[in-house]
Amino acid sequence: MRRAAEWVAARLDFAGGRVVDTDGQPLVLGEWLGAPGAPTILVYGHYDVQPPGDESEWETPPFAPHVRDGRMYARGATDDKGPVFVALETARAFHAETGALPLNVRFLIEGEEEVGSPSLERFLAARRAELAADLVVSADGAMWRASEPSIAIAAKGLLALDLAVTGPSSDLHSGRHGGAVQNPNHALAELVASFHAADGSVAVAGFYDDVTELAAADRETLARVPFDEESYRTEVGVPALHGEPGYTTLERLWTRPTLEVNELRGGGAFTVIPRSAQAHITCRLVPGQQPEAVLGAIEAHVRGAAPHGVDVRVEVEPGAVPAYAIAADHPAVHAGVEALRAVYPAREPLLVRIGGTLPAAVLFERTLGLKTLLFSFSTSDENLHAPNEFFRLDRLEEGMAAWAALWQLLAAGS
Amino acid sequence: MRRAAEWVAARLDFAGGRVVDTDGQPLVLGEWLGAPGAPTILVYGHYDVQPPGDESEWETPPFAPHVRDGRMYARGATDDKGPVFVALETARAFHAETGALPLNVRFLIEGEEEVGSPSLERFLAARRAELAADLVVSADGAMWRASEPSIAIAAKGLLALDLAVTGPSSDLHSGRHGGAVQNPNHALAELVASFHAADGSVAVAGFYDDVTELAAADRETLARVPFDEESYRTEVGVPALHGEPGYTTLERLWTRPTLEVNELRGGGAFTVIPRSAQAHITCRLVPGQQPEAVLGAIEAHVRGAAPHGVDVRVEVEPGAVPAYAIAADHPAVHAGVEALRAVYPAREPLLVRIGGTLPAAVLFERTLGLKTLLFSFSTSDENLHAPNEFFRLDRLEEGMAAWAALWQLLAAGS
Repeated sequence: MRRAAEWVAARLDFAGGRVVDTDGQPLVLGEWLGAPGAPTILVYGHYDVQPPGDESEWETPPFAPHVRDGRMYARGATDDKGPVFVALETARAFHAETGALPLNVRFLIEGEEEVGSPSLERFLAARRAELAADLVVSADGAMWRASEPSIAIAAKGLLALDLAVTGPSSDLHSGRHGGAVQNPNHALAELVASFHAADGSVAVAGFYDDVTELAAADRETLARVPFDEESYRTEVGVPALHGEPGYTTLERLWTRPTLEVNELRGGGAFTVIPRSAQAHITCRLVPGQQPEAVLGAIEAHVRGAAPHGVDVRVEVEPGAVPAYAIAADHPAVHAGVEALRAVYPAREPLLVRIGGTLPAAVLFERTLGLKTLLFSFSTSDENLHAPNEFFRLDRLEEGMAAWAALWQLLAAGS
Repeated sequence: MRRAAEWVAARLDFAGGRVVDTDGQPLVLGEWLGAPGAPTILVYGHYDVQPPGDESEWETPPFAPHVRDGRMYARGATDDKGPVFVALETARAFHAETGALPLNVRFLIEGEEEVGSPSLERFLAARRAELAADLVVSADGAMWRASEPSIAIAAKGLLALDLAVTGPSSDLHSGRHGGAVQNPNHALAELVASFHAADGSVAVAGFYDDVTELAAADRETLARVPFDEESYRTEVGVPALHGEPGYTTLERLWTRPTLEVNELRGGGAFTVIPRSAQAHITCRLVPGQQPEAVLGAIEAHVRGAAPHGVDVRVEVEPGAVPAYAIAADHPAVHAGVEALRAVYPAREPLLVRIGGTLPAAVLFERTLGLKTLLFSFSTSDENLHAPNEFFRLDRLEEGMAAWAALWQLLAAGS
């Protein structure tokens, strides 16, 4: 980790690049502030990566980069080293060619993004003055599709919790005790089944209460996004799409909150009535929803639906975050769209939303009061978190051209 | 395995004891047929044992027998080596003292009971003549309680199946795809929840169709069995007992069929919509029910309840067996009760039922046309299949006295 941080810091030698300790992994700071009167941006990215997983699934070793067909294959190539490199090289190129950047730039490249940025909030709070800026520009957060330049203007929030059903004091033989006690597997299934209506909507009272409903204009914008439901169905490989009625699939993916049971776990494939059964649940939240309120609704639902003969407990995981959004007409979004148009003149940029979560963007807003423009040149098909992660090499030059245009536009707009 | 079989065969030297190969593990045969005109019994037991499990949970090593407080601790001590030893030593004692047994005795001590006796049916069918008898007396099948001599007159049948729900073609990120596809965990929970009514009865149409309802006399007999529901509740450690209404807990345990979901398994504790989710299910069957008919009812229920947007499959495990029962007024049961009275004059023997399964008894009936008297001196509290399995040593002499009395009664009753 420290070697990676030192490598990043060295690339920022012209900007005082340095490795700084946190409560967890070190991060890298740097700043070039030679443009008085121009705005200041804080460039965010991360140098940490996911574990490689089963290395036998990799065509080439995860930590030995290989170039094939114009793509660099390596763990971290697209999440987030390639996109961070684009930002660093943009700054270096400006500095090398003109001796200056078009605006003031601070850098914060962290090492804990893949584990939920646990040290970041405290670090930001302690360094407010040192990080003062007008806008965060993030090199993290993938584009939607390789063929369509896009800017994400919203990311869902996240609430993770565990549901535990406890019955007998030890595992029981299902032959000797079946029919006399509530089976925790049955009780868990009953609870999990109660979370959704048959139509796919969440059946927890109050779950949708604080959701900011889409404005007609937003729905029109979404309807213009090219999205073929049948292609999507084929891509994910399901017999039929399924979800909350009253919304298109894209509206559900991008703008509706969800409650997904990620794990069911109880007993084993033998004649047992297990003493307990567990579910892991994650809710994706949308603007308006607060994690605490959603948790409260789920807890009340579970209390009301708790089956007979067992104990039921809900435990929330730390690190819940609300949704993040930046207005479609925010000046930074306008500048981002213009910068993409300059590089991809044939393809009108799309404003998209992300079903995943961007805790850092929420933390920048909460701690520093800054909006974040997501301006990554990663694409969501590049095997993020999976074997054979790659980064399209032509995105390096496209990305640098777009970042350069963005900085000039932001400088001019000030 | 072979050494254990050879040890048993050697104990039957006076009866031509020999190790015989099967399609699987060897078994031991032997016979003493020197009582012309007297009935012939087939003594059944098994020399194989369960795996020891986590050896750190054993107070003394599972395969080094230790005697403490009048109990022998070892894997297999009570299931089924102690009870088999009782039968073998009864025969040896008769032979040593009188040069003869009171009736004709064949022995069949198998080595595959703990894995469902997969080779036994074929073996029995091929050796019908060699195994001809009037009755099977089983040294397997534990007594209900140490304080109450008992004979089990019924054991439930078993039907095991797996339920698999398949959704997307690969695991999906629950942030990126949540809300657009049916989550196999949700679908599995919906199906599992549909198997039971809230009152604990099985809600699968046709499940109870062929159940032979208890006669009033049977219910009266059961009502006289000492059974304290509150003690039972405390013993299993549940906040409340739970089960099919209209029956006492003991009636449910001993005479009602059950459908228990032993395992729920899907996804993991991370942000995934799993491609599939599984349940392992075992049904305990009672007299009248056929495994094939119950399977058909479950398959029809699953077809009718299959949630939208996923594929659902039911796969039956091999080895399903119907219930076993011997009439309470069968002469062999009378003889068994008399033999227990002779050894335990202060305690009237109980006729009990077993929630577990006795495939061998079903096979003896189906293949050889023989009823089986369960006459074991194991007790169900002796940690069968668990760490610290033990056998009460005073049961050795009590058991031999009872087996001797039983044989004399059966001989006299002929």
